[in-house]
Amino acid sequence: MFSTVLVANRGEIALRVARACRELGIRTVAVYSTADRDSAVVRFADEAVHIGPPPARASYLNIPAVVEAARRTGAQAVHPGYGFLSEDPDFAEVCEANGLTFIGPSPDVLSRLGDKAACRALMAEAGLPVLPGSTGPLAGAADAKEAAQRTGYPVILKAVAGGGGRGMAVVTDPDRLLDTYRRTSAHARSVFGDDRLYLERYVERARHVEVQVLCDRHGAVVHLGERDCSVQRHHQKLVEETPAPDLPARLRSAMCDAAVRGARAVGYTGVGTFEFVLTPERDFHLMEVNCRLQVEHPVTEMVTGIDLVREQILVAAGHPLTLRQEDVVHRGVAVECRVNAEDPSRDFAPTPGLLTEFEAPGGPFVRVDTHAFPGWRIGPDYDSLLAKAVVWAPDRERALARMDRVLEELRVRGEGVCTTAGFLRKVLARPEFRAGRHTTGLVAEMTG
Amino acid sequence: MFSTVLVANRGEIALRVARACRELGIRTVAVYSTADRDSAVVRFADEAVHIGPPPARASYLNIPAVVEAARRTGAQAVHPGYGFLSEDPDFAEVCEANGLTFIGPSPDVLSRLGDKAACRALMAEAGLPVLPGSTGPLAGAADAKEAAQRTGYPVILKAVAGGGGRGMAVVTDPDRLLDTYRRTSAHARSVFGDDRLYLERYVERARHVEVQVLCDRHGAVVHLGERDCSVQRHHQKLVEETPAPDLPARLRSAMCDAAVRGARAVGYTGVGTFEFVLTPERDFHLMEVNCRLQVEHPVTEMVTGIDLVREQILVAAGHPLTLRQEDVVHRGVAVECRVNAEDPSRDFAPTPGLLTEFEAPGGPFVRVDTHAFPGWRIGPDYDSLLAKAVVWAPDRERALARMDRVLEELRVRGEGVCTTAGFLRKVLARPEFRAGRHTTGLVAEMTG
Repeated sequence: MFSTVLVANRGEIALRVARACRELGIRTVAVYSTADRDSAVVRFADEAVHIGPPPARASYLNIPAVVEAARRTGAQAVHPGYGFLSEDPDFAEVCEANGLTFIGPSPDVLSRLGDKAACRALMAEAGLPVLPGSTGPLAGAADAKEAAQRTGYPVILKAVAGGGGRGMAVVTDPDRLLDTYRRTSAHARSVFGDDRLYLERYVERARHVEVQVLCDRHGAVVHLGERDCSVQRHHQKLVEETPAPDLPARLRSAMCDAAVRGARAVGYTGVGTFEFVLTPERDFHLMEVNCRLQVEHPVTEMVTGIDLVREQILVAAGHPLTLRQEDVVHRGVAVECRVNAEDPSRDFAPTPGLLTEFEAPGGPFVRVDTHAFPGWRIGPDYDSLLAKAVVWAPDRERALARMDRVLEELRVRGEGVCTTAGFLRKVLARPEFRAGRHTTGLVAEMTG
Repeated sequence: MFSTVLVANRGEIALRVARACRELGIRTVAVYSTADRDSAVVRFADEAVHIGPPPARASYLNIPAVVEAARRTGAQAVHPGYGFLSEDPDFAEVCEANGLTFIGPSPDVLSRLGDKAACRALMAEAGLPVLPGSTGPLAGAADAKEAAQRTGYPVILKAVAGGGGRGMAVVTDPDRLLDTYRRTSAHARSVFGDDRLYLERYVERARHVEVQVLCDRHGAVVHLGERDCSVQRHHQKLVEETPAPDLPARLRSAMCDAAVRGARAVGYTGVGTFEFVLTPERDFHLMEVNCRLQVEHPVTEMVTGIDLVREQILVAAGHPLTLRQEDVVHRGVAVECRVNAEDPSRDFAPTPGLLTEFEAPGGPFVRVDTHAFPGWRIGPDYDSLLAKAVVWAPDRERALARMDRVLEELRVRGEGVCTTAGFLRKVLARPEFRAGRHTTGLVAEMTG
């Protein structure tokens, strides 16, 4: 087992990973940007290394600085968390070249699945259902027009290098295609350094259901069930739950089987998520594969009792999985709400500022993953996630009642700081949500 | 269902109960003494009523004040928590007389089991094993001497009205019996208003294992398994866990069956705990029945997924249990550590004071039940419980590693305030504890 692990991330996930390390008896090294020098993980970790100024390019995306921090502190492995370098094949490769274990899939798998167009083709070949759309990246605006015609409107343009809900745009009106293509492509170039796009049929009134897999380096693959993540704003998740409500057992099992097949096809290792779109006709199609721990992993942990970060670390250290598929037993219902420092009334604009008050809720079957504390300054440089409120209950109705209590109990105050907590309570109260029949359009319907 | 419940308690348990009420859609009324006017539950509850000055007799034990608060606020039921009025048959009776539901067993059951000598006799009659000792209360010092001779030394003198580890004394040397009898009896008179004592064989190198039962008002009785509470100081628990380590399945099942038989014999309703002493020869004997929620109930909740306070409330409202015995499924291991504001190096003397810093640990499978926050003043009037750290894991080794991380992560600072957290980490590290072979003598061996 590793004796020292460097956590190449910030915020709640860095703390989450560091806690798992400590429970395994592993020494932890945090890295931090100047903006994060007083952060919770810096205080928690056994050692903390400053890696640069706040802009991510200069710190959390700064591969030489991260690798140098690992070298200096004697780290043997790097946990990348989510976002930042977590799915970067170059980073994984540089780690390997420096004798550091990258806690995640191999650089080869990251390359093949990180190119979203290539991933689509690869998974179609492995027999997974994918949406009609372009085969591979679009050659330009004219190619996009042709592919959209063939696919049928509405379509969604997506950055080949995108993911996590960024770099995508829906086109309903053929006349808007060229314009949207150019804008999205330019945006992709500036954000991901890669302007290539691909295109898929856009499913309206869809549900987003994803399957968690866990794979060791010896060929064992298990799935840990599914999560419904249909409550989204700007293609980003706000509420996640497991099991997915109103999902027939046969469909659930077909989706889980597909994910396992996909993972086997590419020789996946570590934890990964197969994201599917579920149509109103109850067909499912693969959207993308997330080659990292998800923000919403706690809901899976709460129903299975499996510590996903611990498993990631063990698998990366070469341990064979001790879990067999039949050992994965799901109990009850877990729901996560992302409490973001955002103003729902201004299209979820971030509200940075100093937290004068912060009290996490508690009680039975409640977990709050957060890096916030009174006196913490929410900066403008990073995502607006403030806390993940996660609850468990034997059934969905009780889980939602518990979540409502938890969101009400959360106390956040700060100059100019708003949160999504109140809005999330409204989501929980919506009849279509309560019935488990909501789609990815819910938030837009509530705010539009 | 009740629309308003009054919580007749303070500290972490008042908050625990109020949270359960809110999740059931029940309006909550807190009561508070002057010392608790800024407490967490006062802020949490829908309404809060001042019931008197700090001494318990004047507030939390002040039956007329509590009942008047319930009347004024329209409460239909009273949850007594643990300690204070929770096992007082007079209080339960006054509640009933005032049209308030007492969330607990009937006054009759409270009377019969609250008299510890009568409880012993009753349970022996129901076929439960009890330790050799006096039949009923001792008539005086001479009777005590005779009973001790018959029973065989060492013996333990216990207050008939005692419980929760208070009002008891071990006698090893026959020459000390008379003196100890007088002292314990006088103490019992001053603390419980009842000087009667009884006597039992005292088992050295014993383990304390208790069984949780849950009974509705229609005759259904289920048990929720056992808890090992052998780590004690001054006969009070410091660490509790479930399942009890190193307990053969046959013994576990015999103890659970005995508890169910005992509960049926008296027509028990609500939640209750049958406390057993387990001898080195692996015989078990009933010590007492606790007619209330236990401090350590969260460990049972974590392995069974059952919300005990919710069940208490439903049962008190007359709902039949929806759980059958076969629905109670235990998963993994849960451990609780009581973090008290005490100085272990001064025989666990309380250390009241102002908390300047308080940060509860977090992370997966962790629950911290606490009423503490930065700025809270730990007063000298009440027990020293500051926080209950509870963890779950698939096995005991991982649970203990998690607990060690949690205790390390907890940050408490305050003028003159010490905690048991560091001491508890030493307990967790003891070889006999790790092996699950420790006895109720462990803490004395560590500190003596």
